[in-house]
Amino acid sequence: MANIFGLEAPLSKMAISNAHGEDSPYFAGWKAYNEDPYDAKKNPSGVIQMGLAENQVSFDLLENYLEEHPEAYSWSSGPSSFRENALFQDYHGLQSFRKAIAGFMEKIRSHRAKFDPERIVLTAGATAANELLTFILADPGDALLVPTPYYPGFDRDLQWRTRVSIVPIPCHSTNSFQLTLQSLETAYADAEASNLRVKALLITNPSNPLGISSPRTLLEDILDFISKKNIHLISDEIYSGSVFDATDFVSIAEIAEERSHISSEKIHIVYSLSKDLGLPGFRVGALYSYNDRVVKTARRMSSFSLVSSQTQKTLSFMLSDEEFSLKFIETNRMRLKERHSCVVKELRDSGIECLKGNAGLFCWVNLGEFLEKKNREEELKLWKVILDEVKLNISPGSSCHCSEAGWFRVCFANMSKETLEVALRRLREFSEKIRGRRRSPNGEICT
Amino acid sequence: MANIFGLEAPLSKMAISNAHGEDSPYFAGWKAYNEDPYDAKKNPSGVIQMGLAENQVSFDLLENYLEEHPEAYSWSSGPSSFRENALFQDYHGLQSFRKAIAGFMEKIRSHRAKFDPERIVLTAGATAANELLTFILADPGDALLVPTPYYPGFDRDLQWRTRVSIVPIPCHSTNSFQLTLQSLETAYADAEASNLRVKALLITNPSNPLGISSPRTLLEDILDFISKKNIHLISDEIYSGSVFDATDFVSIAEIAEERSHISSEKIHIVYSLSKDLGLPGFRVGALYSYNDRVVKTARRMSSFSLVSSQTQKTLSFMLSDEEFSLKFIETNRMRLKERHSCVVKELRDSGIECLKGNAGLFCWVNLGEFLEKKNREEELKLWKVILDEVKLNISPGSSCHCSEAGWFRVCFANMSKETLEVALRRLREFSEKIRGRRRSPNGEICT
Repeated sequence: MANIFGLEAPLSKMAISNAHGEDSPYFAGWKAYNEDPYDAKKNPSGVIQMGLAENQVSFDLLENYLEEHPEAYSWSSGPSSFRENALFQDYHGLQSFRKAIAGFMEKIRSHRAKFDPERIVLTAGATAANELLTFILADPGDALLVPTPYYPGFDRDLQWRTRVSIVPIPCHSTNSFQLTLQSLETAYADAEASNLRVKALLITNPSNPLGISSPRTLLEDILDFISKKNIHLISDEIYSGSVFDATDFVSIAEIAEERSHISSEKIHIVYSLSKDLGLPGFRVGALYSYNDRVVKTARRMSSFSLVSSQTQKTLSFMLSDEEFSLKFIETNRMRLKERHSCVVKELRDSGIECLKGNAGLFCWVNLGEFLEKKNREEELKLWKVILDEVKLNISPGSSCHCSEAGWFRVCFANMSKETLEVALRRLREFSEKIRGRRRSPNGEICT
Repeated sequence: MANIFGLEAPLSKMAISNAHGEDSPYFAGWKAYNEDPYDAKKNPSGVIQMGLAENQVSFDLLENYLEEHPEAYSWSSGPSSFRENALFQDYHGLQSFRKAIAGFMEKIRSHRAKFDPERIVLTAGATAANELLTFILADPGDALLVPTPYYPGFDRDLQWRTRVSIVPIPCHSTNSFQLTLQSLETAYADAEASNLRVKALLITNPSNPLGISSPRTLLEDILDFISKKNIHLISDEIYSGSVFDATDFVSIAEIAEERSHISSEKIHIVYSLSKDLGLPGFRVGALYSYNDRVVKTARRMSSFSLVSSQTQKTLSFMLSDEEFSLKFIETNRMRLKERHSCVVKELRDSGIECLKGNAGLFCWVNLGEFLEKKNREEELKLWKVILDEVKLNISPGSSCHCSEAGWFRVCFANMSKETLEVALRRLREFSEKIRGRRRSPNGEICT
């Protein structure tokens, strides 16, 4: 729009900064995919999107359910039903829906932890839940400890509008990138030494991007640590229903219960239906806090981020169906396990190793051998070659702030089996080509 | 939850402050209503809610439409339709929906202004849109000018998480509480003198709580003013479809067009489907900006506040139906006008005067004669009597930061005609009782 004075009214520092973090290759890869998306028939040489942690493997179950239960989304029980639903604007959300989510979270944990629907605060996705918790726990300038590699969106969600800083805790391949008490202690001490006030530790369990869950002993150590330091713990468990073997996963909620909720008021859990149920478009996130004040404040704050009552109604109906919920959780687990095994095996056959994973919609893949030098620049060069030439969008570890170059997150649940096979074949051909060049004396890598 | 150390991990200043503003009588009245809600049969002496600006007068039109068009909410066109919808998570929102909203906004303005769907950013309600714009336009410590009386929620929406301050511009009954250029100049100068950097002016047009629209000349003055001062204008037009007479309303978009968009990049419009369509539960807000950078940043920021794709689909279908949309706008206007006239007449017959209104779901009512003294304390005393004894929840002007005591916002569209009649009868009886007491020598007011 024209401005005759040539003078633009200033925007906020936040608006003109790059703190939104969306210029990273993580998001750039999405754009590249959107411009040239693979389609078996229409665009067989297009980019295959392996940078999107989306779960499509169990969609048929949801579709069948809705076909059999149109009452989940229609307003068939008379006009007043639509009216009440459309007018509903209580920050608490539909009680039936909070109850259904609490029940779903319990089923995922095989009832080893209980969730009180009154402690659930609904938000438009986990993105909003994580930001909202940061606003509540930390002041501008304060810090949150986050183990690396971490989900690239956290740079935006935890820092941008809150003005809080992430202090990364570097984790390493030597112990499968698991957080250790020692690295936690060191990161905390370093932050304090830099005059940063640490207000909380945030973990993703199971981890995005690693695809592994936290061992019980680590969770015990973490709880002891946050109690000792008197800081909060945000446990982002949005992949808790995507653990291939249910017994592998320990929720922080279980440990809290085992400890009779001593220090529980420091624990806050984030959940979402975007991953485990595969419904990112419906924007359903939730936070669960054992801290009354946090629940109360979060509920007030949720006015910026409420979930459509229409969607609450549909999903409340679906998740309240015990038989369906249980079957979904089991089938989804089984199918993800199958997918995961297939990917790991195929990569291994191509001579590519993955971190041993047990959860999530992705593998954490080591392509370090294809780097000339183990640094960020070379990693991004490789990423670009894989995007432009191999036509696969995978996420470079550096976009997840990984401390070691050469690792990539490779998503496998957002496509058909056929497309996955094409993707894995492309990757195999690429690795064979590179290795072939290496064997020739003049061969150069990635040129 | 128990804490064996008796030591609570600290929360943010934001979390423990009262800056959320929800302790005001505006919100307290809602609670009182919820505890004892009026029902003609089950609780005929309960509280009638006149503090909620909700539009139920045209619900039958929506209900009939959905009954005739189940395809608006069902996934009848095959399973892939559900899949695509549930997976949709583009920050831009469904293009069909943005187009439908733009078209609806144009119809409301009788096509005197055009809206480009690419400039629409969707948010979970206008609450989120206003906060998001504040984050983009102002830094912590900066100020927004807002004429009083204003919507009580602004204290939360514009200030709480953004740390921006509202500088009120007092408006007065002497000129029907309309903003004047002089009061605008004075408020700006005072703010600057107090070292507050004014970044924007926010107006509600039509005004909530006044129920009046801004005259064209005032909008011209405002545009000249913000151009001269090089600040932004947020025009919250969420009641633009609830103006009883279409010709009465001038949108800032019309003036911007007439001026060939000189300085338009300083103008940002907020819209919502909660009021004009009566769908607060569906959480659909939108902002429309002529400023490319604001659109881009707002879209990124909207990841905290996305609208359910299920709801986008339903409303996209409904609003794209040209015949239905037009009929809805016309019928809704007519019905609101009827309601409004009935309320004004009944109050006048009771000897109570209202501000001459032409829009909205409420009247701005002068109960000053029932105050012993014209101050906030007496106003709140009267409010409490009306709530506890007359059993009506109306909103005291002081909760809207009105500069004169004795004014109340009285909502009339969130109930049946029968309930409205009961409410108006209660108010008439109350005023007769008070006036009767006054005539008796020992009569006291409001005891």
